[in-house]
Amino acid sequence: MDKLILHEDPRSGNCYKIRLTAALLGLPLERKVYDIMKGETRTPEFLGQVNSNGRIPVLQVGPRFLPESNAACWFLAEASKLVPGERFERADMLRWMFFEQYNHEPNIATLRFWFAFVGAANLTDQQRAQVPAKRIAGEDALALMDRHLAGRSWFVGDECTLADISLYAYTHVAEAGGFRLHDHGNVCAWIDRIAELPGFVAMD
Amino acid sequence: MDKLILHEDPRSGNCYKIRLTAALLGLPLERKVYDIMKGETRTPEFLGQVNSNGRIPVLQVGPRFLPESNAACWFLAEASKLVPGERFERADMLRWMFFEQYNHEPNIATLRFWFAFVGAANLTDQQRAQVPAKRIAGEDALALMDRHLAGRSWFVGDECTLADISLYAYTHVAEAGGFRLHDHGNVCAWIDRIAELPGFVAMD
Repeated sequence: MDKLILHEDPRSGNCYKIRLTAALLGLPLERKVYDIMKGETRTPEFLGQVNSNGRIPVLQVGPRFLPESNAACWFLAEASKLVPGERFERADMLRWMFFEQYNHEPNIATLRFWFAFVGAANLTDQQRAQVPAKRIAGEDALALMDRHLAGRSWFVGDECTLADISLYAYTHVAEAGGFRLHDHGNVCAWIDRIAELPGFVAMD
Repeated sequence: MDKLILHEDPRSGNCYKIRLTAALLGLPLERKVYDIMKGETRTPEFLGQVNSNGRIPVLQVGPRFLPESNAACWFLAEASKLVPGERFERADMLRWMFFEQYNHEPNIATLRFWFAFVGAANLTDQQRAQVPAKRIAGEDALALMDRHLAGRSWFVGDECTLADISLYAYTHVAEAGGFRLHDHGNVCAWIDRIAELPGFVAMD
């Protein structure tokens, strides 16, 4: 495989997903760190070379650049133990990864970013107006995860897959956004299960 | 392959993606229609059997149910001509599908739904407050697509892939949400290109 470089901000769960995937697979990954709070992913160099979207993470594979955290995890893990061998289960894994980006991340990660990094006092009126809806939608996502995990160890099949890694990234730090994980016992047990995987690395 | 049933509302671009994928691949697909405006995906039967998330589309594959439009497209198209054979390009295709669900659909599809189906006069104050931000984010997504398509026929590689189908679904009807497609000439040419594909079916 070409040399792998992760363009990242270590505080981002989307970046952490990729680092955790590489660690569980034993893949070497160089890290190039940016501070998104200082606009380091909005410079002409970054926009021109790394990602015209101005967002991280981006996985660099030799001379090519791959934005979108879950696509980068897929690139690293395709045909590995982290992707099911059965066709329906493979699609079902992607189902949870799309759920993560649509129903989970915009609510749970955004409230963590606003409250733990921007600060409640610094939110714009428009951000403040969105908090109640994001709180409800984030709680709904956690409740749906908790119901799905009843009697199961992993989101898809009988092994840890990218669905688990993708959802773990922002779930295990959801309390920084004001979510109460202890209301969701199955989710808490699953969080502990992931942290015990061989090769696991914690978020910085 | 098991019998395929699409649980859908024909006005939804997310449902149309799956129907278009099946049509381009010549796969037979039964359709079961629900009216989301009448709450038909929130009944106890739907929540219990089809999708506890209360959302469509859901692709039924024999006895199993697969939510999330892009995961369903992947299930149908895996290893077909609509998915690149090269590893990086396959991940890059998924990159655009995650972009579609994160940066495109919540803005372009939501404004279409609000203005063309709910009606401007019926929006809640909270919805109304979100319109300007969604307008800007949707325009940004279209502009990024237009720049990417400069000198290219398709989003990934030299052939139509699921990335194109996924992005086409809500882009080609974006004007119903108040977006001006004619500002984006490369996007318009690409829309015409998709409609000429053998097996193409239009949205109902």
